[in-house]
Amino acid sequence: MTEIAEEQQIEKHRAALQEALESESPVQVTDLLEELNPAEIADLLEGLPQPQRVSVSDLIDPSVKGEVLLELGEEARDHLIADRSPEELAAAIESLEDVDDQADLLLSLPRAVMAQVLHILDLHKRERLEAVLSYPEDTAGGLMNTDQVTVRADVTLDVVLRYLRMRGELPEHTDQLFVVDRHERFLGGLPLSRVLTAEVDSRVGDLMNPEVQAIPADLPDREVARLFEDRDLISAPVVEDGMLIGRITIDDVVDVIREEAEHSVMSMAGLSEDEDIFAPVVPSARRRAIWLGVNLMTAFLASWSIGLFESTLDKIVALAVLMPIVASMGGIAGSQTLTLVIRGLALGQVGATNARWLASKELLVGLFNGVIWSFVVAIVAVLWFKDYEIGGVIAAALVINLFAASLAGVAIPLILRRIGIDPALAGTVILTTITDVVGFVAFLGLATLLLR
Amino acid sequence: MTEIAEEQQIEKHRAALQEALESESPVQVTDLLEELNPAEIADLLEGLPQPQRVSVSDLIDPSVKGEVLLELGEEARDHLIADRSPEELAAAIESLEDVDDQADLLLSLPRAVMAQVLHILDLHKRERLEAVLSYPEDTAGGLMNTDQVTVRADVTLDVVLRYLRMRGELPEHTDQLFVVDRHERFLGGLPLSRVLTAEVDSRVGDLMNPEVQAIPADLPDREVARLFEDRDLISAPVVEDGMLIGRITIDDVVDVIREEAEHSVMSMAGLSEDEDIFAPVVPSARRRAIWLGVNLMTAFLASWSIGLFESTLDKIVALAVLMPIVASMGGIAGSQTLTLVIRGLALGQVGATNARWLASKELLVGLFNGVIWSFVVAIVAVLWFKDYEIGGVIAAALVINLFAASLAGVAIPLILRRIGIDPALAGTVILTTITDVVGFVAFLGLATLLLR
Repeated sequence: MTEIAEEQQIEKHRAALQEALESESPVQVTDLLEELNPAEIADLLEGLPQPQRVSVSDLIDPSVKGEVLLELGEEARDHLIADRSPEELAAAIESLEDVDDQADLLLSLPRAVMAQVLHILDLHKRERLEAVLSYPEDTAGGLMNTDQVTVRADVTLDVVLRYLRMRGELPEHTDQLFVVDRHERFLGGLPLSRVLTAEVDSRVGDLMNPEVQAIPADLPDREVARLFEDRDLISAPVVEDGMLIGRITIDDVVDVIREEAEHSVMSMAGLSEDEDIFAPVVPSARRRAIWLGVNLMTAFLASWSIGLFESTLDKIVALAVLMPIVASMGGIAGSQTLTLVIRGLALGQVGATNARWLASKELLVGLFNGVIWSFVVAIVAVLWFKDYEIGGVIAAALVINLFAASLAGVAIPLILRRIGIDPALAGTVILTTITDVVGFVAFLGLATLLLR
Repeated sequence: MTEIAEEQQIEKHRAALQEALESESPVQVTDLLEELNPAEIADLLEGLPQPQRVSVSDLIDPSVKGEVLLELGEEARDHLIADRSPEELAAAIESLEDVDDQADLLLSLPRAVMAQVLHILDLHKRERLEAVLSYPEDTAGGLMNTDQVTVRADVTLDVVLRYLRMRGELPEHTDQLFVVDRHERFLGGLPLSRVLTAEVDSRVGDLMNPEVQAIPADLPDREVARLFEDRDLISAPVVEDGMLIGRITIDDVVDVIREEAEHSVMSMAGLSEDEDIFAPVVPSARRRAIWLGVNLMTAFLASWSIGLFESTLDKIVALAVLMPIVASMGGIAGSQTLTLVIRGLALGQVGATNARWLASKELLVGLFNGVIWSFVVAIVAVLWFKDYEIGGVIAAALVINLFAASLAGVAIPLILRRIGIDPALAGTVILTTITDVVGFVAFLGLATLLLR
């Protein structure tokens, strides 16, 4: 039994690794790696610059190499896989216990290499793998394992107990056996705790829980995750046309939840959740350049909207000075609404029936904040530029922009979702364009109309 | 056995509920609620405006009311709890199976009500609850349950099997029994699968896994979640001074992971993860106003930095028009770096040993993108305003601002973390202030120096 305080541990491991690398002592590195579990090794690798990663990864024990590769982010993994021989990769895949993990690793290989590796694997392994490979990676079928333990409904518990003892160790995360008929049709789940506590002469059919929900093989992984969360599941049967074809376990679902969460955070900044924090400069810059390019077009749009009022601007410097305030307040207010709605969509709280109610609430919130802050801004503007008219103009522009921002914050994610675009990815950039343009046009337009 | 496509289901339930509410038929509502599990009911409630929520919640079956309350976001829960009598609340708490859930619900009550409710609960329940309540909510102790099943090391499996059968049903999510000595000192875990498959005359001490890591009661819940993820755990023992005091199960850990993820997404927009999407307008607006106020101060700072160059501005309208581009590009580039570093910190990939490497990489990425985009912007500026000098000035300002943005994106989260402030919460607003000010000063400063 050991107690741990992981946070400090990782930094300690990293410092130890750095030292071992600097003293160029492979033995020291190997010793360090042996103390760590695959997830910890993966974290260490991702915290290293890429050239060092390759030399450290050569020193990883082959029996855990597959697991380490799986724990890495996609980009870091691709880089480590690039120079390996098909034999090495096949060994890494065979070192993995679960067939869904084997499939994940195999699918991350380039297409040509994948075929070579499949060829090297022995026939039995290949057949099991191909069962999982036939489903898209992001569905229940792609998440599942084929290691389920099945029993018949008409036998007694006694028989099950003898069968299990003969069979030996159960697959990891087995909390229930699956009851099937002779055609492999799924009938229900038999929890291990019931196997251990019920009378030995009871029939499986009477003990099993027929309410256990079977997951269709084509259910998207996001919905599988929601099911596991809502029902506190450890494992669940996967069926196709009523036939039991595999099972999904909570450890794989936790990965889906984590990935989904990272996707939201990262894509709001125009990054991919697989972005490798220690990737080299050129590919990192290239990927991020696209987002900056999109932003630039929208920024020019904003500039163009300022340009419409050149003659007004020419006259009043104060306007140019105060202009960014209107845009920036709209951007913040809009992104608050946007974030809330995106989260609501992801959690299934927002739909057609309540969208209108939500929109009117958010508009009122925007109006409310617009009025409050326009007072503050107007007072500061009047004190700063000694001009009541400018105070009035900026106050009005602020109310208009916060109102528009709320409207956009609700409408953008709903519209994007309807046309099949991920709101977390595209929402922010569209929103800030709208708040910039509305902000500038409202402010400068009012100024042109009202200031002399 | 039923198959499900949850996404559409929720919207269907919501439409059915709306219809039942409009026809003012409580029976119809009750029937609908009975078909749903607590998580689904909670989702439905959160998707309703608050006045309707109260009337629907009155119709929820008392046996699941506790679970529904727990599944709600904090703000929605507080609102529903507000008007309930202590007796009703005590009944809701007693309807919960796990003591950690009971503690969570109790802790969400106002202090005075909590004491009244505790008083109503019977002595035995109160004692169990108080064991959990003595630990902070966000530690292993606050997450744990006290329903672990323990066995002694010196008995045979035979005895364990008889004990279990006598005991009846095991607590939910029991994948292992815990082995303790006579002083309740934790010795190891005995997986159920081993209980089912090993020889019945083997000794528990020989079968148990002594490698099972016990979690100290004061470990923060974030680190508990990482341990479960890294080691694919279903349950883990919680110890204090080596004594077994409870166990944590994966279902509670999944909630921690989800909350942590929501916290990042929401706090980057200055919202709390407990923000209720259907809260009434006034409290919603009040809470969000604070963030807008902070942004306003920083926006004024940005305006002030523009104001420094009033005389330059007065002369060249083009500058005012192009100005937002420099700031906005810096903001986007900086927030990409910021998001990446915040995620890296959360995953433990970034620490003292590799911060410098990371900083230099990000600076190069910033420089790289700065150079690329400055060309594009310069060309557009020259074509637009027919002025080579303005093109040169905006290009230089853009390179400077993207460089500064990268530096700030790495430095801000590291510094905030060091001084104990959550980078996800405060990072964005500090970053955009820096990119606005540096952008405006670089652009207008260069223009003042170089243009004529």
